[in-house]
Amino acid sequence: MELKTALQQYYKLQAKLAAYGHAMALIYYDGATTAPKATAANRGQTLSVLSEESYLLSTGKETVELLEFLDAHKAELSQKDARSVYLALKDIRDMQKIPMDEYVEYQQILVEADDVWHTAKENSDFALFMPCLEKIFDFEKRFARYCAPEMHPYNYCLNKYEDGLNMEKCDEFFGALKSRLVPLIKKIGERPQIDDSCLYGHFDAAKQEKFGLALMDIIGIDKGHCGLATTEHPFTTSLGSHHDVRITTNYKEDNFASSMFSVIHEGGHALYDMNSADELAYTNLDGGVSMGIHESQSRFYENLLGRSRAFAEYVFPTVKECFAELGSYTAEDFYRAINKVEPSLIRVEADEVTYALHVMVRYELEKRVMSDELAVKDLPTEWNKLYKEYLGVDVPSDREGVLQDSHWSGGAIGYFPSYALGSAYGAQLLKKMKETVDVDKCIREGNFAPINAWNKENIWQHGCTYTPAELLDRVLGERFDPTVFTDYLEEKYGDIYGV
Amino acid sequence: MELKTALQQYYKLQAKLAAYGHAMALIYYDGATTAPKATAANRGQTLSVLSEESYLLSTGKETVELLEFLDAHKAELSQKDARSVYLALKDIRDMQKIPMDEYVEYQQILVEADDVWHTAKENSDFALFMPCLEKIFDFEKRFARYCAPEMHPYNYCLNKYEDGLNMEKCDEFFGALKSRLVPLIKKIGERPQIDDSCLYGHFDAAKQEKFGLALMDIIGIDKGHCGLATTEHPFTTSLGSHHDVRITTNYKEDNFASSMFSVIHEGGHALYDMNSADELAYTNLDGGVSMGIHESQSRFYENLLGRSRAFAEYVFPTVKECFAELGSYTAEDFYRAINKVEPSLIRVEADEVTYALHVMVRYELEKRVMSDELAVKDLPTEWNKLYKEYLGVDVPSDREGVLQDSHWSGGAIGYFPSYALGSAYGAQLLKKMKETVDVDKCIREGNFAPINAWNKENIWQHGCTYTPAELLDRVLGERFDPTVFTDYLEEKYGDIYGV
Repeated sequence: MELKTALQQYYKLQAKLAAYGHAMALIYYDGATTAPKATAANRGQTLSVLSEESYLLSTGKETVELLEFLDAHKAELSQKDARSVYLALKDIRDMQKIPMDEYVEYQQILVEADDVWHTAKENSDFALFMPCLEKIFDFEKRFARYCAPEMHPYNYCLNKYEDGLNMEKCDEFFGALKSRLVPLIKKIGERPQIDDSCLYGHFDAAKQEKFGLALMDIIGIDKGHCGLATTEHPFTTSLGSHHDVRITTNYKEDNFASSMFSVIHEGGHALYDMNSADELAYTNLDGGVSMGIHESQSRFYENLLGRSRAFAEYVFPTVKECFAELGSYTAEDFYRAINKVEPSLIRVEADEVTYALHVMVRYELEKRVMSDELAVKDLPTEWNKLYKEYLGVDVPSDREGVLQDSHWSGGAIGYFPSYALGSAYGAQLLKKMKETVDVDKCIREGNFAPINAWNKENIWQHGCTYTPAELLDRVLGERFDPTVFTDYLEEKYGDIYGV
Repeated sequence: MELKTALQQYYKLQAKLAAYGHAMALIYYDGATTAPKATAANRGQTLSVLSEESYLLSTGKETVELLEFLDAHKAELSQKDARSVYLALKDIRDMQKIPMDEYVEYQQILVEADDVWHTAKENSDFALFMPCLEKIFDFEKRFARYCAPEMHPYNYCLNKYEDGLNMEKCDEFFGALKSRLVPLIKKIGERPQIDDSCLYGHFDAAKQEKFGLALMDIIGIDKGHCGLATTEHPFTTSLGSHHDVRITTNYKEDNFASSMFSVIHEGGHALYDMNSADELAYTNLDGGVSMGIHESQSRFYENLLGRSRAFAEYVFPTVKECFAELGSYTAEDFYRAINKVEPSLIRVEADEVTYALHVMVRYELEKRVMSDELAVKDLPTEWNKLYKEYLGVDVPSDREGVLQDSHWSGGAIGYFPSYALGSAYGAQLLKKMKETVDVDKCIREGNFAPINAWNKENIWQHGCTYTPAELLDRVLGERFDPTVFTDYLEEKYGDIYGV
């Protein structure tokens, strides 16, 4: 076979897989946004067929031969082509180790689990969700054993979301954060607390949606290629390629800041996904490379930019336009309110300082379940215990506790550490960006173009062309250092709280 | 091969095709409802892959052998199995005659056309849409020649939507309607006109949506399996099976009756689709058998029930609850307003009496284009001429003229006559239903259960098990007779207008 012909065949296959991916992602998206309540089984039926077809296509004899041929000629391939083939082959090696019927069964379970989780959360009924969650952890353990028997199953899970991550690195990272955050939180707790009453009241969902759309414009999202919808738990998804991205949010009518920051957070994910180089569309290099890098972008926009004094000052007139109730407050009141530090129950609403502790609870529990040291049925009790221990709060119900996140129902075991890693990556990236971009001035002028251009140049355009570590090395030119993040927090909150 | 094994394989194949159908229908639905504006090309890319895969699956060697084996044993099959195999084989015979690249190209054109049509309609710019429409008519002619060279291409199109229909039957049917409707419209025009001002004002889309959801409950739609969304042009679609159906509407804020009757119309389609026997799910017998029978159900709920005096009286308190503006009107005012007869521009808003004339314009134009007697570029001029001739109205813009319907951009050439046929079928079905169900009493009590049970028993449950003609024969026990419809119109409007 000619190498050129093989590559053409290979990218045709990639485009096919992208089409299946589009269909399946849209079916999930539909289920989360507008599908009628009793239709999950119907989606499960279709997803089981499409995932089987996609599996056969990915792992079929012809495909494997093609990939092996390309892999044998990798020295003659461009860096991009070689990386694409490497990733595809890696996926296949994993997929081949998972029996197809189990793979398909798991896809169906995930669809049902999503539905059951929604009901369970609504009714704060962990017992309802427990059988699904047991199956999910079981499948994750089994798949880990199939794919990487040499590894601890939880390390396999961590690796899926952040290439190269393991429990040792997590323990070290979380240890470093804890040693700086716990004293900071304690000092903050001893200071007069911030009055954040300006964020509370009654804010129509329709008004919040209008505000959310305005925020998308402000941070530079092209709404021709990115939609905004409403779901129980906010998320971002790409459909087929980076040309069609959807973000979702959830409107709490008593607190507009909740959807405000979820729109900016998901907006950061969307900007990353939407700005892959066009040539990567319909290949496995399209979109973000890892969840850690992804969260570095989402939390970059949400916190490093979105909760900065410069942004509070720039956006406050728009806030007042949308919510006239805030007429008597100043931008400084607003800035302090959106940066109030308070140990609390709900991760997605946590402040920047306590956020990592929420993540640590989940990391700890996942690690123990995946190590067979904790049974799924005991998760609520242990969850509540750790919240008391790490954050000092009592969990009044499973809805506000162990059932709050959608990740487990979606099978995303090992995902959570990415959030904390992302925060830390983001702080280091911002420090680097500031060497060449006057970030504060840009934000004060509502001019996100130079910021987005820097991110596009250094991160977004590359899609999955480099590993997360390579990408960070290229941009930063130095090792990952979580103290940049803790320094940033101490400086910012030292100023706000006078500590 | 064992017959039993072959049948199992066959229904597995049907389920696969249903899954592809689900994915493709959802991608269209997404495009019409929530997709960001600039994403049509991305959907086109995915649809071209999925339609190719689905085509290969339907027409592959293995499939054809399986079908031919089953067809050879049709005497041993149940009526349902035999009918399913017959329909699948018929589709394949057609599909095999269409070169795959042309089939895939056409699917892509339809996605683009939908997008272009929206913009063209918005800007009343027929020239923008013309190249797409020319391609669509060309493909339809070409496909007709491939599939049925012995037939006039327009007859082939008519057959797709109503098995057995042809121009001769249409000409006779429309002739029969015209001879009774034109004098009736003339007589009505000479009487004092109805004041329908109660329908006009400002009605928030959000309130109309609430009303629409209430109407779905009233006519007995299970909202757990049927969603309501907003689109430019209302439609109904099934996703994968009759377990997940979506209807859409469009809210005109100056006239709530527009969305009210589109919800009831699409609701009629939905009831038909949703009530196939469960055993038909994921087979080609699931859902309605033809567009004529489908429209008989939609127009049955919209007009025969929805615009009856009994329904006006039953629903008026709910109308007033949703739209307090109507407080000073009576149910009789409302009944007369929703039955005002007036030659007008927009088909979907036309009254029951003039409606068929709108259809005749489209039938006449499609016939002429498909006969190469009229060029696509001349459609606007001829459209406007026929509206003047048939309805006596001047068309002020293509938006309110030739660009008003979505059918042509979706490739649905030959569909329109089904609307008029459906109205006439519906009138005859209602007459039959009244032999055993006190329809007026049921409606007055808001009790749609006996009406729906009759429809389910006689029509809905059968899906595509019988041909449209067989189905009507079984229910009616007599020949199709359009004078039942014209008698109904003369009686109802004779009473309203005193003619």
